[in-house]
Formats: sequence, structure tokens, C-alpha cells
Amino acid sequence: MKILVTGGAGFLGARLIEALLAPTANDLLPAGGTIVSADLAPCPVDDPRVVSHTGDVSDPAFIASLIDPSTTLVYHLAAVVSGQAEADFDLGMRVNFDATRTLLEACRQQAQTPRFVFASSLAVFGGPMPEQVPESLAPLPQSSYGAQKAMAELLINDYSRKGFVDGRVCRLPTISVRPGKPNAAASSFASGILREPLSGEASNCPVPLDTRLWLSSPQTVIDNLLHAARLDGQALGLRRTLNLPGISVRVSEMLDSLARVGGDAARARVGFEPDERVQRIVCSWPGDFDIERPLQLGFRVDADFDSVVKAHQRDMNR
Amino acid sequence: MKILVTGGAGFLGARLIEALLAPTANDLLPAGGTIVSADLAPCPVDDPRVVSHTGDVSDPAFIASLIDPSTTLVYHLAAVVSGQAEADFDLGMRVNFDATRTLLEACRQQAQTPRFVFASSLAVFGGPMPEQVPESLAPLPQSSYGAQKAMAELLINDYSRKGFVDGRVCRLPTISVRPGKPNAAASSFASGILREPLSGEASNCPVPLDTRLWLSSPQTVIDNLLHAARLDGQALGLRRTLNLPGISVRVSEMLDSLARVGGDAARARVGFEPDERVQRIVCSWPGDFDIERPLQLGFRVDADFDSVVKAHQRDMNR
Repeated sequence: MKILVTGGAGFLGARLIEALLAPTANDLLPAGGTIVSADLAPCPVDDPRVVSHTGDVSDPAFIASLIDPSTTLVYHLAAVVSGQAEADFDLGMRVNFDATRTLLEACRQQAQTPRFVFASSLAVFGGPMPEQVPESLAPLPQSSYGAQKAMAELLINDYSRKGFVDGRVCRLPTISVRPGKPNAAASSFASGILREPLSGEASNCPVPLDTRLWLSSPQTVIDNLLHAARLDGQALGLRRTLNLPGISVRVSEMLDSLARVGGDAARARVGFEPDERVQRIVCSWPGDFDIERPLQLGFRVDADFDSVVKAHQRDMNR
Repeated sequence: MKILVTGGAGFLGARLIEALLAPTANDLLPAGGTIVSADLAPCPVDDPRVVSHTGDVSDPAFIASLIDPSTTLVYHLAAVVSGQAEADFDLGMRVNFDATRTLLEACRQQAQTPRFVFASSLAVFGGPMPEQVPESLAPLPQSSYGAQKAMAELLINDYSRKGFVDGRVCRLPTISVRPGKPNAAASSFASGILREPLSGEASNCPVPLDTRLWLSSPQTVIDNLLHAARLDGQALGLRRTLNLPGISVRVSEMLDSLARVGGDAARARVGFEPDERVQRIVCSWPGDFDIERPLQLGFRVDADFDSVVKAHQRDMNR
């Protein structure tokens, strides 16, 4: 029994692998099972049950080496992030769309249909939107990243309808607070404006203070990714795509949380240099969703943003 | 100045080419301009301004031979129809999605951005729907044909956003009455139950009488395809995809029109053998749309179904 995690060296992938190794997840990874991490870099999780494959997911030969008849579950997290996919359209197509398709094809060739959990994004949405986004709203991506994710969603839905895979598409909220370094995601600041000030460093907020973001803590996203694999695919009905629960928070409210948790000194480390490139992408995303169905299906949501920032602070001090 | 029409040997493509050759369309095809037809079969339109290329649009070398710097307008109509794409998933992907992508790439390489009119379909919709489909409803295809068209739509929208092409996506209603022979489209009966009885032949209706269809006459679709090319791309805003106007007609009402136009003898030639495969696809499609925006943009709609049937009868007798 084998679980494949693409992007297993990334922040989310590594944390997911740790969660899959925990005894509480032995329904997904029973004794004797292994986790295959596939990423450009080796998986940082040191455990005998983790096999790390390094390579490029946009290389079909690499994909073919990852899947075999014992693969029961695939987490496809590997992606080129929004800012990078906007700057290099062809790279984004190759990694965010073509690699997903190749992976789906590899799954389709297996005798046993694997469960396939795909990390999509609220970046599929854009343009005029109601205050709260309903499940039936059409994607209208304002970034190539969003367009590539939306195309992959349709493909997974059709592969599931045809019985080629048993797919579950999770549109992730913006994750905050991500540990580590800033990255090329347009939403990188949504972690930076908390993480850096809490570590005594300066950080820039490139968007207006009243920008509303749809946020989830890393732990809640991980819990929800595990839940997505546990669900009975039939319970999803025709719509394999879910807007994962998040909380709707304005940037000003994020900074209020920062001041409450980290003090005024931390809050004072945030600068406000607008960045048009970031604004164009991030301000096209919805800030609130109707999450009735995901909650009914058993997905979790964070209590409030203060608790998210406190959890990050606890992680920092571990 | 060159106009490319893929699927130019098909019923719609050939009729579109005839319309483009008419003096009323010399804003699109000025004196000295040519039309390139690309299809598996030679274009049946006999005119010195039409150059017929036969080949497979899923062959990138064939696509490359069709586009050059003088190509100002592309009509991409070539497709594997719904029934066939459902039976042969890989063929559908290759023709309905990959060929579209190859064609978009060829356009992107040109110094002058061509206008790109794509024939999509109401088959992108499925699942639970409001009585009248709003423009913002998310596609939820219940056929691979619909999924492939919906992915191509997203690609064209993103290519247009990036300025690689100047795209216009027309989701065509079911066309009735198509002349000629039945084809492998799941909606083939929507023409067959009128065309065959009016020619003295028997025809089968495979869906329940209360099935609502979203219909357009061939002439109105052609007029609207011409209009799509004439529009200023900016007028479409962020949403390059349009649900083309149609009329919402129940199958029972179609048969009433048949009786009024062709007499009770014609009506009596329709049999009622249910076909589950056809029902599964066709009954997942919406039967009514909000068409406020396309009408504001100047697209046309048929007056009623009787006039559609009468127009077909006139064409028959020409």
C-alpha cells in the first residue's frame, strides 16, 4: 500500500507526510505501507516509511516511475505558484496542467482506481463576484495559475465521472501563517506580514488594508486534506470540487491580530509599499465563501485569526 | 488577409464559409482575401477565394501549415461530437482539447494577434441547475465532450487575458434543424425528429416529451458567429465566453410545430424508443438561459420554433 505525495519536499507536502505517518492516520497508511514523496528536492521528513524520489513532475518518465498497482492514494500538491506561472506561462502550463494530466493518465492505467486528492486554489475565481461565493460560481481566473488549476479541476471531475480515478479537488484558501521564507506566490505577503514581524524582521504589505482574504491555518488545511482522502467519493456527487473552509479576514484585521499576539512593536515592523502586480492577482480573489456543503461533509474551519497567529507562535517556539 | 475555418467541410463550417463570401461580410473578408478551410474532407464550397486543406487538426504539423502572418481571423469549429467523445475519451481529448491548444499556440506566435472565435457548447453544463442558467453558472459537464470544451474555454480566456489571441467563445445552442444525415452527436435527434418526417421518413425520439431543449436555427447561429468576429474584444470584458441566444422549447412543442408545418402525417412518422445513452447526456443540459448580455452585445435570436421549421422547409425546397 503506497501513498504518493507530489510536492512532498514543500512546506505543505512535508507537513502532510508527517500527518500521514502519525498513528491517527493509520486508516490511510496502514502498517507496512509507504509514502512516496516526489519533488525537485528530497523530502525533509526522516522516516523509514518515506521513499523520496527527486525529479520533475512535468517529465512523463518521472511520473511513470511513481505509480504502481499498490498506489491507493495520490496527493497532487506539486505546482508552480501564482506569481511564477504568471511570469512564465509555458512553465505553468507544463507543471500545473500537463503534469496533472500525465499523473491522472498513470492512475487510469492501474487496475485499482486510486483516490486522487488535488490541491486547487481560490485563484480560479475572479471578476465580478457576489460578496459570498456560492459553490456554483463559475471560475473566471485572472491569472494563468488560476486558469491552469481550473482546467485541471475539470479534467479530474471528468476522470472521476468516467471512473478513471476517484478524485477530490480541494480549493485551498490562502494559507497563513506559512513558516519559512517568502516565495513567488502573489499571496506570499499574507504570511510574511505576520511571520517576519513576529521574528523581529520588517515585512511589506503590498495590498490595501481593506483587502479581504480567505485564510486557513496550515494545520486546518492538513486536517482537511486528510479528510478529503477519507471521504467516500460517492458523497461528493457530481461535483468533485470543494471550496475548503476558511475564515474571511481583512488585512487590517490580520494586523490587529498581529498587534494583540506579538505586541505593537511587531505591528510597527509592517511597511506599506503597494505592488501593482500582487494587487492585480490577489485583489481579484474572493474573500468569502459559502461553506455549507464542506462543513456538512465534515471539513474543519479555524475558530478565528488570533488563534491562527498564536498557533504559529507556538510552532516557532517548538 | 486570411480567415481560417477549421471544420470547414462540416455542415456549419461550409455554411459559415458561404456567409463569409457574401458581399455583406466584406468587412470580415475584404477584396483579395482568402478563406482557408481545414478539415478531414475537402470543403464543398466552390469559390476561387476558398483554399481547402485536408488533414487532421490534431496533427501539429497540419495546424502549423494553416496559420501565417496574414491570418487575421480564426474560426475553430472542428470537433469530435458528444456521443463520439464519450465513446472514445482519448480521441476527444486529442481533437477537442489538444488541437485547440495547438491552434492557440500557432496564433500566439504571430506578430498580429488574430481574432479567435471558438464554437463551444451548452454541454459544458450539467448537474443541478436553476430553471434559467445565469452567465455566472459554473460548468459541471456530464460528458467528456463538455469537459473538453470547458477546458478549451478557460484556455482561450487566459490566452485572451495575456494578449496571445483575441478570443470569443460562443457556446452554441443545439442546432435545429440541421440538414443532411443523422450524426454521432447525442443531440442528433433534435434535428432528426423534424428533418426525417418532413422528408417522408421515420425518425425516433429517444428522450421524454417534456425534455426542454435550448435551440437555434442554423441561420441564426451563422449570423451570431459572424457577429462574434465583428465585436470589439474589449466589449466582452473579462468574460470572453457567451451563452449564445436560443429559444427554450420542449420536445412536445417541437412535435407540435412539426404537425403545424408538415401536417399530422409528418408528426405520425416519429417513434418513441427511449435511448438511455442519449438521455443521460442530453437531459443533463440546460433548457433555458439568461441571454441579457449577448442580446445587449447585438447577438440575434429566432422568433419561435414554427418559423425555424418553416425556414428548414424552404431550404429543402431550394
